[in-house]
Amino acid sequence: MLGNFTYANPTKLYFGENALDNLKAELAQVGPNVVLVYGGGSIKKNGIYEAVLGILRECGKRVAEISGVMPNPTIAKVREGIEIARAHEADFLLAVGGGSVCDYTKAVAASVHEEEDPWEKYFVRFEEPSKPVVPLGCVLTLAGTGSEMNGGSVITNAETKEKVGKVFADTSVFPRFAVLNPRFTMTLPHYQMVAGIYDIFNHICEQYFSGTDDSTSDYLSEGLMRSVIHSSRIANRDPQNYEARSNIMWSATWALNTLVACGKSTDWMVHMLGQGLGGVTNATHGMTLAAVSLPYYRHILPYGLAKFRRFAVNVWNVNPEGKTDEEIAKEGLAAMEAWMRELGLVMNITELGATPDMLEKLADVTIILKGGYKTLTRDEVIEIFKESL
Amino acid sequence: MLGNFTYANPTKLYFGENALDNLKAELAQVGPNVVLVYGGGSIKKNGIYEAVLGILRECGKRVAEISGVMPNPTIAKVREGIEIARAHEADFLLAVGGGSVCDYTKAVAASVHEEEDPWEKYFVRFEEPSKPVVPLGCVLTLAGTGSEMNGGSVITNAETKEKVGKVFADTSVFPRFAVLNPRFTMTLPHYQMVAGIYDIFNHICEQYFSGTDDSTSDYLSEGLMRSVIHSSRIANRDPQNYEARSNIMWSATWALNTLVACGKSTDWMVHMLGQGLGGVTNATHGMTLAAVSLPYYRHILPYGLAKFRRFAVNVWNVNPEGKTDEEIAKEGLAAMEAWMRELGLVMNITELGATPDMLEKLADVTIILKGGYKTLTRDEVIEIFKESL
Repeated sequence: MLGNFTYANPTKLYFGENALDNLKAELAQVGPNVVLVYGGGSIKKNGIYEAVLGILRECGKRVAEISGVMPNPTIAKVREGIEIARAHEADFLLAVGGGSVCDYTKAVAASVHEEEDPWEKYFVRFEEPSKPVVPLGCVLTLAGTGSEMNGGSVITNAETKEKVGKVFADTSVFPRFAVLNPRFTMTLPHYQMVAGIYDIFNHICEQYFSGTDDSTSDYLSEGLMRSVIHSSRIANRDPQNYEARSNIMWSATWALNTLVACGKSTDWMVHMLGQGLGGVTNATHGMTLAAVSLPYYRHILPYGLAKFRRFAVNVWNVNPEGKTDEEIAKEGLAAMEAWMRELGLVMNITELGATPDMLEKLADVTIILKGGYKTLTRDEVIEIFKESL
Repeated sequence: MLGNFTYANPTKLYFGENALDNLKAELAQVGPNVVLVYGGGSIKKNGIYEAVLGILRECGKRVAEISGVMPNPTIAKVREGIEIARAHEADFLLAVGGGSVCDYTKAVAASVHEEEDPWEKYFVRFEEPSKPVVPLGCVLTLAGTGSEMNGGSVITNAETKEKVGKVFADTSVFPRFAVLNPRFTMTLPHYQMVAGIYDIFNHICEQYFSGTDDSTSDYLSEGLMRSVIHSSRIANRDPQNYEARSNIMWSATWALNTLVACGKSTDWMVHMLGQGLGGVTNATHGMTLAAVSLPYYRHILPYGLAKFRRFAVNVWNVNPEGKTDEEIAKEGLAAMEAWMRELGLVMNITELGATPDMLEKLADVTIILKGGYKTLTRDEVIEIFKESL
C-alpha cells in the first residue's frame, strides 16, 4: 500500500434470500415520487417486478417507469430517462436489473438537475456532478458488473459507436443501498451467467495485473479469484446451487467497489478492448472481455512476468518446481484458458460478430490506457484483435 | 454465503503518508466543541499531538482533553470521560491513539446523552444507544484492533475484573473517518508492534475457524492472512519498512470491519480466553491472545479438522501429499507456531503474570461462546489455561 488514497463506500448491502424485506424501510426514508428503472421485461416474467411494485404501493409511492434499458445502454436512452425523471419530479430512482440498468440509473440520477447534456459532461470531459444528484437504490438481478456498490457508469454513444465508462467519485451517485438476493440471478440463461462470472474475474485481473509494489490488495484479489473459480465450477454444473451463486454474487460486489485497487495502480486494458468491441458489435460485455483476454495477457506477459508467475502459483496452484518463471507464468494462463473453456465462454471475437474488415474501426474506438505492464500502440491493439479473431 | 446479512460501513478511510491532510476538511463539517482523547502521552513525544492540535486550532475549535486512556480502558475512566464531554458540550470526539483509545471514545460517545450508566446498558445488557451519539473520528497510531472502522468497544470493569466487548450495530458509533498514516505506527516498541500484528491475525482466525459452509469470506480471510504473514516477517526484521507497515495497517482495518464475517458463523473464543486473562493480569491484549491460541487451536482441531487442513494448505503452503488430514492440519499449526516464535510473541500466560492459583478466577471471568468447532466446558477452559502456563 504505497500510495495515498481514500476509501469511502456508503452503499448498504442487504444480502440473502430475504434481502428484499429491507426495501420497505429504505423507501420510508425517501420522498413520494419514485422512478422504477428496468430492462427488457424479464423481471415481469420472474415475479420480481410485481414484488417490487407491491412494496412501492404499500409505501404509498407515486411510481413512474423507465423500461427497456438495453444491455449496452445508450446516451439517447439516458436523455429519454432524464425527461421522465424530470416530469415525475423524482425523489428517488429504483434500478431493478443487472449492471446495465444500474449504470444507466446513475447516469440519469446525476443528470436530472444538470443543464448540460450528460455525454459531453460525464463521458467526454469526465466531470463530477455540479448539481444535486437524485438518490438511487438497486435491486440486483444479475451478478457481474459490481455497479451495485460503486460509482461506475458505462454508456454507449450509438452514433459514434463509442462505449465509455465514467467512474463517479462523488458517493452520492453510488446506490444508497443494494438488495442482493442470489435467487434473483437464477433465472438467467447459462450464457448470461457465465458472461457475468467472467466479467467479475476480469475486474479482479484488471486491478491485479499492474504495479510491482507489494500490497494487501493483491492478496485480497487472489482470495476473491480463488473463490470465483471455485464457485463458478459448481454453478456451471449446477446453476441452481444457491451457495455457489451467492458466493459469485458477493464476489462480484467486492471485485469492483474499489477495495482491491486501494493503494495500487490498475490496468483496465481488457475492458478498453472489450468496450471497443462492444461498441462496434453490441455483444454481451462479459463475452467481449473473454474473447480478447488471453491474446492480451499473452502479449503483455513478458512485461509483467513476476506477476503472471505469482498468478499461476497463488491463484491456479501451478507447481513451480523445476520450471522457469516464463514456463510457470504460461502454465497459469493455460489453466485460466482451461477454466474459461470449461465454463463455455466465447473465446474469439469472430463468434461475437467481428470480421477482419472491422479491425481498423475497433482500433479507432479503443481507448489506450497506461496502467498495465505494457502501454499498447495502435498496431498492438490491432494485432491483439487480430489474434482474437 | 448462506446466511442473510447486512453490510453497512460508512467510515471513510484516509490512508497514506499524507492522510492527516484530510483532517481539516472533516473538522469543517462538525460543531465547534471538540474533545481530544488520547492515552499515556506518547503522541506528545512523536509530534502527532502538536500536529493534530495545530489543525484543531486552525479550524477554530474549542478543545477539551481526555488524556490517560489506559491500554485496557476502564469503565471508571469512561464515566470520567462522559463528564468531561458533557461539561464541554461536545460536538465531536477525536480519538488519537490505538484501538484502546478508539474503543474508549466510542463508549463515551454513546453515553454522553444517555441517562443510564454505560456498564449496565452496553456491557451487561448489550443494548444499542437510545439517545443521539456524539460523532467521533480517529487518528490511528497503532495497527491492530480494527476499531477504526467498526462498532467494537472493549471495556474493563476493574472492580469485577471483567473485560467485556460490546459490538455496536448502530453505525453512528463507528468513527466517521479514520486517518491511517503507517508512519504514525513506526515509533511503537517492537513488543507492541508484534502484539498488534498477532491481534490482527487472530481477528481473522476467529472469523475463519467456524462453520462448514463454503463462503467467499473464507477466501478473503486467507488472502488477508497471507498478506499479514508476509508483511509481518519484513516488519519484524525491519520495523521502518513503510510498505510492510502499510500493509499491516490496512490488513488490520479489513480484518475487523465485518467484511470477512459476512454470511458465516464466527468463533471468538481466543478473544474470550485472552480477555479473561487481560482482565486478571492487565497484560497487553495481543500477547494474551498469542499465549492462549495454540493450546486452544490444538484442543479444537479434531472438531474442525477440514478447516484446519484447509488453513495449513491455503495459508501456510503445507504440501498435503502423502499425509493424513490430521498430519496436514497439525503441520499448519506448527508453521503458525514457528512464525509466532519468529516474531517474538509471548507463548505462555506465565510470562504475562498468570500463576496456577489464578486458574479458577480465569475460568470465572471467561465468557464461553458457542460459535467455534467445539463449545468449551468450564473444565476445558481451565485445561487450556493450564496448558498455556
